[in-house]
Amino acid sequence: MATILISDRLAKPNKRNVVAVRTLKVNAGVSEPSSDILAAEEPLEISVAGNVDGEDFSRTIAITMRTPGSDEELALGFLFCEGIISGTAEIDNVLVKDCNYVCLSLRAGVRVDQELFERHSFVNSSCGVCGKKSIDFVLSRLSPAAVQANSINSTPDSTPMRISGTLISKLPDCLRKRQDAFESTGGSHAAALFDFSGQLLAVQEDVGRHNALDKLIGSRLKLGKLPLRDTILLLSGRASFELIQKAACAEIPIVVSIGAPSSLAVELALNCGITLIGFVREKRFNVYAAEHRIHLE
Amino acid sequence: MATILISDRLAKPNKRNVVAVRTLKVNAGVSEPSSDILAAEEPLEISVAGNVDGEDFSRTIAITMRTPGSDEELALGFLFCEGIISGTAEIDNVLVKDCNYVCLSLRAGVRVDQELFERHSFVNSSCGVCGKKSIDFVLSRLSPAAVQANSINSTPDSTPMRISGTLISKLPDCLRKRQDAFESTGGSHAAALFDFSGQLLAVQEDVGRHNALDKLIGSRLKLGKLPLRDTILLLSGRASFELIQKAACAEIPIVVSIGAPSSLAVELALNCGITLIGFVREKRFNVYAAEHRIHLE
Repeated sequence: MATILISDRLAKPNKRNVVAVRTLKVNAGVSEPSSDILAAEEPLEISVAGNVDGEDFSRTIAITMRTPGSDEELALGFLFCEGIISGTAEIDNVLVKDCNYVCLSLRAGVRVDQELFERHSFVNSSCGVCGKKSIDFVLSRLSPAAVQANSINSTPDSTPMRISGTLISKLPDCLRKRQDAFESTGGSHAAALFDFSGQLLAVQEDVGRHNALDKLIGSRLKLGKLPLRDTILLLSGRASFELIQKAACAEIPIVVSIGAPSSLAVELALNCGITLIGFVREKRFNVYAAEHRIHLE
Repeated sequence: MATILISDRLAKPNKRNVVAVRTLKVNAGVSEPSSDILAAEEPLEISVAGNVDGEDFSRTIAITMRTPGSDEELALGFLFCEGIISGTAEIDNVLVKDCNYVCLSLRAGVRVDQELFERHSFVNSSCGVCGKKSIDFVLSRLSPAAVQANSINSTPDSTPMRISGTLISKLPDCLRKRQDAFESTGGSHAAALFDFSGQLLAVQEDVGRHNALDKLIGSRLKLGKLPLRDTILLLSGRASFELIQKAACAEIPIVVSIGAPSSLAVELALNCGITLIGFVREKRFNVYAAEHRIHLE
């Protein structure tokens, strides 16, 4: 199998809401270096500032992983739907800066519902407000062993476990046979864990994809099976930054998503040395990171 | 069009992860009362308690909307991935109670990373820990006018605006023609707003479905167009509780989702009098709540 280096920084075209990435497209066992356009994902910090009874306040209300663009609208809509603002009359100005930060300044004297406000406030926002910082934060929390185990620079000898393209193509069918609630409702996400021979170890379903993965990792933790170094994670939907973050915490080396990955999911996988595969369809799939763990027949 | 009452409490079959609901299935203009199995959605409160230096502490770390089942595993996996616990050796016991509450007690003397802990702690959890309380909380925050406007008990005269089944079937195509990032990436969710004649008013896309809807509502708020009483919201994916909550805040009377709704999305729509339509395919769709706003030719 031809190996291409895909650890270059992701190229960002003019449109901020999409990102071009290099990928390895595999079709019926034949691979070809290619490129793909992914939905951009970056964190946005939403803050509220004001002055009540002569006292200034400023609080981070949320950090949301979003596609850049319409950030002011996102902050307005979020704060309105959470009941923190009731209309634009309360707003003095909206400051959008550093690409990933929005601060909404309330007119002097405007009070916010203290209970709602407290419910959402962060004491601090240490996860940072850009993709790079988010990735550094995840990396800083991984054990040295995890970083070493997944390192893209490790020699073939130190990472002898590889899986075949044929096995990857079979995983979605294995999941569908076991996907209980999804079969009947079409409304659940699933996360499944396989060993390197393709044996299904565990599957969990949930309306939230992050919950399905938390349940899966929690079930292995309960059984004393962490870290999950010799396993493959299959996601029924799309792969976001948050899901790759969880996989990294559990030291899962290979993530296969039936749907599309986000730009930041790819960037994190590249940084953690996690093999990330997306768009699995019959005998086709795309490899976005660490393809050294895949061999094609 | 035959009218059926679907405001009965949702029936819960034996399996906690799915819920049976009454629905009106429409196919090529012909409607038929039917039933559907939906993925269950309920809030789960995750708490951590412990004792450090002789002092007890107990904090709510998260409230997540999840499908019931494997709640202990969900809490374990979530707290592990957030770095709040590093393994089961730190845990004294796990208390699961009231169906929607998990408290993880740490062994005496086990310290948690204060910064991570503070980042996640809620000062209180006033949104409640069951679906009923979550719905009551949303209802309590709606204006009386909004409740009246959407009331399922309002007479035909007070809610003269109705839309045709033909129009509903056309909405997904209108969206696809305008869906920018999705077309190229397959990785975005879209939220679109239409007037009752089917005119597209606004569309927003994002990797997160809640962000797409916040951006849409925020863009209308910025233009002074709220409340959105004479509009139809189209969601490219599934409809969760959170999305119906946002629609209710903006007083959107009709929500159409291309994917499946969750059980709690249906329950909230029934309580708010929001017309909720799901699984829109060609000339077929299912109506889950407030079908009095639809007329079939």
